[in-house]
Amino acid sequence: MTLRYELLATDGAARRGRVHARHGTIETPAFMPVGTYGTVKAMTPEELEGLGAEIVLGNTFHLMLRPGAATVAELGGLHRFMHWSRPILTDSGGFQVFSLAKLRKMDEQGVRFRSPVDGAEVHLTPESSMDVQRALGSDIAMMFDDCTAWPATHAQAQASMERSMRWARRCKTHYYRDAVPGDLFGIVQGGMYDDLRLASLDSLLELDLPGLAVGGLAVGEPEPERLRVLETVVPRMPRDRPRYLMGVGRPEDIVAAVLRGIDMFDCVMPTRHARNGHLFTSTGVINIRNAAHQKDPNPVDPSCACYTCRNYSRAYLRHLDRCNEILGARLNTIHNLHFYLDLMQQLREAIGAGRIDAFARDFMAARRSEPPVA
Amino acid sequence: MTLRYELLATDGAARRGRVHARHGTIETPAFMPVGTYGTVKAMTPEELEGLGAEIVLGNTFHLMLRPGAATVAELGGLHRFMHWSRPILTDSGGFQVFSLAKLRKMDEQGVRFRSPVDGAEVHLTPESSMDVQRALGSDIAMMFDDCTAWPATHAQAQASMERSMRWARRCKTHYYRDAVPGDLFGIVQGGMYDDLRLASLDSLLELDLPGLAVGGLAVGEPEPERLRVLETVVPRMPRDRPRYLMGVGRPEDIVAAVLRGIDMFDCVMPTRHARNGHLFTSTGVINIRNAAHQKDPNPVDPSCACYTCRNYSRAYLRHLDRCNEILGARLNTIHNLHFYLDLMQQLREAIGAGRIDAFARDFMAARRSEPPVA
Repeated sequence: MTLRYELLATDGAARRGRVHARHGTIETPAFMPVGTYGTVKAMTPEELEGLGAEIVLGNTFHLMLRPGAATVAELGGLHRFMHWSRPILTDSGGFQVFSLAKLRKMDEQGVRFRSPVDGAEVHLTPESSMDVQRALGSDIAMMFDDCTAWPATHAQAQASMERSMRWARRCKTHYYRDAVPGDLFGIVQGGMYDDLRLASLDSLLELDLPGLAVGGLAVGEPEPERLRVLETVVPRMPRDRPRYLMGVGRPEDIVAAVLRGIDMFDCVMPTRHARNGHLFTSTGVINIRNAAHQKDPNPVDPSCACYTCRNYSRAYLRHLDRCNEILGARLNTIHNLHFYLDLMQQLREAIGAGRIDAFARDFMAARRSEPPVA
Repeated sequence: MTLRYELLATDGAARRGRVHARHGTIETPAFMPVGTYGTVKAMTPEELEGLGAEIVLGNTFHLMLRPGAATVAELGGLHRFMHWSRPILTDSGGFQVFSLAKLRKMDEQGVRFRSPVDGAEVHLTPESSMDVQRALGSDIAMMFDDCTAWPATHAQAQASMERSMRWARRCKTHYYRDAVPGDLFGIVQGGMYDDLRLASLDSLLELDLPGLAVGGLAVGEPEPERLRVLETVVPRMPRDRPRYLMGVGRPEDIVAAVLRGIDMFDCVMPTRHARNGHLFTSTGVINIRNAAHQKDPNPVDPSCACYTCRNYSRAYLRHLDRCNEILGARLNTIHNLHFYLDLMQQLREAIGAGRIDAFARDFMAARRSEPPVA
């Protein structure tokens, strides 16, 4: 175990910290841009660094299909392949397989599915997921879990969680069997049931992993359910390990989760929204495709310091989007990632200064103060 | 007339010079990346500058349809709209209208066509083309011409050329009617007929325009025909004005035209080829989609100093292309534009050093030395 978490300050349940990983240090709370196929869509690594990204997420499911883990390994690992020298976290592939729904067959051994790329049968197991993530060389590998659907009965959620916990043990054994490129995080499951969540956490604590995630959220459940699960689980998570909330989410969701003690986040929202013309501002989300922006000489957000807002008008961004220009996707992505990464910076400062409650209140109020410009 | 051409050196017919335009100086021979819709596809202005681009081309036809010349003018002109502070040349729209073939109706007044964007009828005339280019605010506007098809009989080419020359006078009168944002170039037409080309040049010389282009080439004619036209026309073009060969072309074509005294070039080839995975190297063009590159850890061109070749393998570029990733289009475009702009730099140095013939011989030999890697 080489990964280490350093707690710098707390403010209520919120934590200001630092994750020391093989390829560098990550100031937390941190947001991880998603680089599905070994590229954060539309961005170079240098641009990501310039925006303050200290870690990116790679998708095991996608990379094992294209270009394949063996190819990445032959080419020196994912860092070298994608020209990113800072930390990388890879997911386990479990969530994507879960999303395949009826195209998959799951049993105690693992999951069988048809590759959406070439139709070949793929068998993903706790062991093969570990093999792929080791081959990719990520700093942080995630255990292969059975992501519980929502809604689920208590019995369904329990069976699913217990399988995940059996898989967690297999993952740890297989991942740490010899010299490793990084470290393995566990994932708390249990659906919306507090007793199952706590049982899952207890199982994982026995494995003494260097970091823990909360999984199985942002799968359709109402927000109060998600917050209740966090309030149940997070206070019992080890104080000296990073806590990662998988796949969440909107800026408001991130603020709410930081208030409850989460340290790490990932979400496709800033990058995917960007490509669809949805841009984040301090007062909400605007749709750059709206005709209202046709002749608007103003930037997306006058208070934003990003490259896009410093140099381009809403009118130009709308024009690029309308003409399906690659530069449009780029400029929008820069803006949205800047919004997320700047938010994390502000959250870290607020925690350090002991004013996270005031910050969160102001943040939420500004976003409610006016309806989306649309 | 504010545009000025400075002749720095000659080497045979080849010229090393400098065009002084409103928004800056252009070292010639120069290549102009094509920015059809107010963006050189996939690139930021800062990246273009970093690659050595000193002027870009904007397409009047496209910009008048989206976002419209009035909108660009309201937003401060094309430079400000697209965040490019150096010179811009705009074409006249004539060539694109010519490409519409049967969708257009042409008479002495101008051309009527249906907008491919929304089906609305558009009337493009020498006067309206000048109005659009003035509204865009380009440093160099091109006269609206009737681009002669290939092949054409002598009678067809003569009628077309003579119409272009009548339009040239209307363009000059209308463009220079009051304060102007830039300067107007004439376009020599006349198909593949030497007498018509020379008659066209004589007509234009009467108008005393600050620069002249050779148009109506790269429309399907055999290479010897194109070179013969250049050898007929270029020696008779004014020595103190820049000479622009429109829409040409392959690196070999550019070298051949520089040898014959051309100063300025534009072509979509480097950017369009990039998006199709065709990458220029010192020995030819490779297709990055080829399976041969699947696990190739080498850069596109080991002798290339561009950002792409310094940091990424052929295997990674092939992977990005296969996954249709925006970064692939970006990295390929950077490489291809670097190839073109670096070639121009080498041509300028060779002319300055009096070794253009040797340079051209070596350049052609290297590209013939091995077949395309495919």
